[in-house]
Amino acid sequence: MELALASKACPFLRNSTPSALRSLSQKPARTAMAANGLVQKAQQCPVMGKAMTIQARSMMTGVSHSTAPQGCPASARHFSASAAAAKPAKSNVLRASAVSSNDLKASVQHELHKAAPAPGAACPFKPVVPTSHAVPTAGKTFDYEATYEQELHKKHQDKSYRFFNNINRLAQQFPRAHTAKIEDEVTVWCSNDYLGMSKNPVVVETMKATLSKYGAGAGGTRNIAGNGAHHLALENELAVLHHKPAALVFSSCYVANDATLSTLAQKLPGCVILSDAMNHASMIQGIKHSGVKKMIFRHNDTAHLEELLQTLDPSIPKIIAFETVYSMSGTIGKVNDICALAKKYGAITFLDEVHAVGMYGPHGAGVAEHLDFAENLNRPLGSPVHTAMDQVDIISGTLGKAFGVVGGYIAGSAAMVDMIRSYAPGFIFTTSLPPAIVAGATASIQYLRNSPHERIAQQTNTRTLKAQLAALDIPVVPNPSHIVPVLVGDAEVCKAASDELLRSHGIYVQSINYPTVPRGEERLRITPTPGHSEEMMGHLIRSLESVWQRNGLKRTSQWKATGGRAGVVEGAVDPEPIWTDAQLGLSEAVLGGAKVPLVQAHLDASASAQV
Amino acid sequence: MELALASKACPFLRNSTPSALRSLSQKPARTAMAANGLVQKAQQCPVMGKAMTIQARSMMTGVSHSTAPQGCPASARHFSASAAAAKPAKSNVLRASAVSSNDLKASVQHELHKAAPAPGAACPFKPVVPTSHAVPTAGKTFDYEATYEQELHKKHQDKSYRFFNNINRLAQQFPRAHTAKIEDEVTVWCSNDYLGMSKNPVVVETMKATLSKYGAGAGGTRNIAGNGAHHLALENELAVLHHKPAALVFSSCYVANDATLSTLAQKLPGCVILSDAMNHASMIQGIKHSGVKKMIFRHNDTAHLEELLQTLDPSIPKIIAFETVYSMSGTIGKVNDICALAKKYGAITFLDEVHAVGMYGPHGAGVAEHLDFAENLNRPLGSPVHTAMDQVDIISGTLGKAFGVVGGYIAGSAAMVDMIRSYAPGFIFTTSLPPAIVAGATASIQYLRNSPHERIAQQTNTRTLKAQLAALDIPVVPNPSHIVPVLVGDAEVCKAASDELLRSHGIYVQSINYPTVPRGEERLRITPTPGHSEEMMGHLIRSLESVWQRNGLKRTSQWKATGGRAGVVEGAVDPEPIWTDAQLGLSEAVLGGAKVPLVQAHLDASASAQV
Repeated sequence: MELALASKACPFLRNSTPSALRSLSQKPARTAMAANGLVQKAQQCPVMGKAMTIQARSMMTGVSHSTAPQGCPASARHFSASAAAAKPAKSNVLRASAVSSNDLKASVQHELHKAAPAPGAACPFKPVVPTSHAVPTAGKTFDYEATYEQELHKKHQDKSYRFFNNINRLAQQFPRAHTAKIEDEVTVWCSNDYLGMSKNPVVVETMKATLSKYGAGAGGTRNIAGNGAHHLALENELAVLHHKPAALVFSSCYVANDATLSTLAQKLPGCVILSDAMNHASMIQGIKHSGVKKMIFRHNDTAHLEELLQTLDPSIPKIIAFETVYSMSGTIGKVNDICALAKKYGAITFLDEVHAVGMYGPHGAGVAEHLDFAENLNRPLGSPVHTAMDQVDIISGTLGKAFGVVGGYIAGSAAMVDMIRSYAPGFIFTTSLPPAIVAGATASIQYLRNSPHERIAQQTNTRTLKAQLAALDIPVVPNPSHIVPVLVGDAEVCKAASDELLRSHGIYVQSINYPTVPRGEERLRITPTPGHSEEMMGHLIRSLESVWQRNGLKRTSQWKATGGRAGVVEGAVDPEPIWTDAQLGLSEAVLGGAKVPLVQAHLDASASAQV
Repeated sequence: MELALASKACPFLRNSTPSALRSLSQKPARTAMAANGLVQKAQQCPVMGKAMTIQARSMMTGVSHSTAPQGCPASARHFSASAAAAKPAKSNVLRASAVSSNDLKASVQHELHKAAPAPGAACPFKPVVPTSHAVPTAGKTFDYEATYEQELHKKHQDKSYRFFNNINRLAQQFPRAHTAKIEDEVTVWCSNDYLGMSKNPVVVETMKATLSKYGAGAGGTRNIAGNGAHHLALENELAVLHHKPAALVFSSCYVANDATLSTLAQKLPGCVILSDAMNHASMIQGIKHSGVKKMIFRHNDTAHLEELLQTLDPSIPKIIAFETVYSMSGTIGKVNDICALAKKYGAITFLDEVHAVGMYGPHGAGVAEHLDFAENLNRPLGSPVHTAMDQVDIISGTLGKAFGVVGGYIAGSAAMVDMIRSYAPGFIFTTSLPPAIVAGATASIQYLRNSPHERIAQQTNTRTLKAQLAALDIPVVPNPSHIVPVLVGDAEVCKAASDELLRSHGIYVQSINYPTVPRGEERLRITPTPGHSEEMMGHLIRSLESVWQRNGLKRTSQWKATGGRAGVVEGAVDPEPIWTDAQLGLSEAVLGGAKVPLVQAHLDASASAQV
């Protein structure tokens, strides 16, 4: 009886689904002093939270507080039972709460609210509603914790609160991983370790040898004790890869984009940045941090870009910032068209190749290299400067996705790179990447420059997956790249589908919700790798079909019949893949005339790459 | 004859010292396509640079350009000899130019300007002087490269241009390193790997094992495939270390400070940030990026801080941002006083313990832990909340200095940490740190929690070094911490002293110049470690004395007699070290009653830590 009352009185419980409560209780504690997700949730409750804090303190100090939580005199006495949950847990973050019964919701209500006051009492379980300006609650000072809780509440309310899955990718069983329980293994289908380079023995053994010889950390900034031969060699390797005079390495490509765009724009007097509407958060931050004028052009809309350029004085500096592979949709930036516009209007181009490096081009330099595939295949250093890659002024890339390690970089002219090196606080004032990381990244780049097998196998698997999903009428956002965005179109449903795949099928595909994608365009972003076998692929396809059937998820034909969404629209023609049949060796191969057979290629490459 | 003319005509050569030119020529090429520092310098010359570019292009394309560099018709024909220097060099970043003669300056002039036009010709070797707004030179579009070069020129002019030394720290011979030449070894005296944890076998072997099992990279953001048990364990370890409910790991502490301060302040309506004048660049950026009102209080001046607090409405949110160990001066923030002010005026505190974690406190949690040494020595989890550490709201720290790896973090309340986790783009949209890095950092923290030996040996060596320098009248900026800032007071002289130590004495201490320290306060920042032996210490002292004598550098007594500088002033009393005699075991020890003998302690610890 009390449970039913609590359920009605508490807006959180009333609006929570059993599956949401289950995943809350499964969310492992993030610290020794926190409890699982459910208890954390209780701590955020304006009623429960304060009572639990007071109770926990009195338990720690041995002093009994008889005062009730502020503003809620009726409730204090009710929390003696719940206080046990707030007691610091033993330090074991690997534990997972066992959830065995279907009546989870009831037990949760019991745990949280077994002594809840009746409706109408002084403490009405009101949700924390954010006010435009938080009002100090106690005396005259600001209530910081309440504000944090309000901000978290917003995230829960709009379903954008993120629960991190505990996924531990196993190098020897790539692409398998264990979850919080070591014995609980799943297949990872959403990693950005696109080519499995993270487990490549060339990379791993290089890192181990470097660890033995040069230790764990760099020990300083690049300027103070943290600059060595490995850093210089990596930057050399990157410059060579992109046929640019110079390159510069950062902690991450987030930092590379942020630091470079903000510093560069600040140094160009009167600069305007023209930014693709779907640019990554790191570029958006860099542009914002520069403080210069920003103009946003519609995604991949060069006509709109030109319209904007025409409004600007030809003599002022302009940066056009865009990407090659847009990671959540898989669309591809129009490199040649945008470079031509840049030239015409006196702009420079900043191209983020983060999801393309290692993956495209005969040497894995990215889409810009791929656009002149034959020409770049055997291009010597310092060769003619007229390919797409040469037209781009600044390329940014990551060492943490296809290259399998971590870190980011830019490549461009010697003076530009030296200026960023000399002025960007985000580069200057930070410990440089460890020698082992840097050496591993160099080894990975070198390996992928000389081995097209992983790229080809990855693209082949991508084609297979897209074809099989199309055959099942499961909606994929059409694109010419290696990304397979499976449209779901609802935040809760998308998360539930992801959870179901993980729980019931041993498949990990993270749901991608707002703000990473627009509301209503939520998706499961699948990234095949050369390590996914035909069996794994078959299992994925069957599992998706099962989830689609069980939950009545919308099919491609249904989206098309109802006006379409996120590119899944009537009359949409699948774009020609960037990797052509010829390049993949499906027809007459250009790669030394060797025909590369379907799927099998990656298995060979993968097998030979095992320790 | 031509040389003498060139030397007079060219403002760069005229103002350059032989040693500056030497180090330029020694600066290894940063990329395969660049040449050494001297040639890079030539590329920056408004005359030489353009000519070399044109020449290099014509060599690459095989097309002969007969046009002269723009605006300098007389000079084009003169550069055929120099063009060879602009030709792409072979890819070998480890090479170092051999410089054997003392008449370097003359040979440099010869190389650069052997065919320079006579003074008064159409091309007068004018330096590039930055204009307030760069004027487009060719047609109507902006000259980006010229702007980059102007910005670099500014750095050269004010002597703040940085040449990175090539230093490769050897784990098995800590604190030795090799330079660009593998056989050329030096002793590193300026690394932030303060305790040698980078070579600690517990750390290195943990990383290797993790590499083998979990691969090189995390493969995604924390939200998408990049969150595992290692990340959760590290955050748990950090929360426990600082006795906070939660912690969050970032790519670096630069990112931690930037992302946390900017996001936090944006979420607190009407927030004002009060910032110590000597705060690190990462905090300054975070404050700037937040866009909120900033008030700067004089370094460590709590009276000034209170004055500022009194001007603010008690009800508005305020963040006081400060550090414990200020890295370039070694001064220590007044944690207790500032926390008391925060409480009095309703502010929260953000404390950067970057240079203190691992180094202070019975468990290496930092200065805040150290302030209640005895109380924290055996403090159980969840114990009374009234120490300095508990008063601080948010602590930020690094995994890349005393902990010897890489990465940064914050620790604080669960809701605050969860809010930053949920909103900070710099946390959300970046590949998470590799499992091996995270596991290595966790091992390092755990090791240092249980072993005070490294801390004690480091502090003991610091005391020894400071005492010996004082005996020689060599000026050290007085401070109570582990930093030994040796005052030089001039940018060029400081760099020259650093170069001389490296070249003639095999000692690497980076010169610290503007903007890292104020102009006129340039210094050699020395950081003793437990791995520095008595022999190394003796050699350092003798070498410094030699450099001081040979170059007539100012002594402590001379600074004091001439009004003083950077704390080296008449009547200054050396502050009591943070690590007391008792804590160091110099008198009655508090560490289990065991007396820890001088210097020897670290040798034992160091020896037992060798593989």
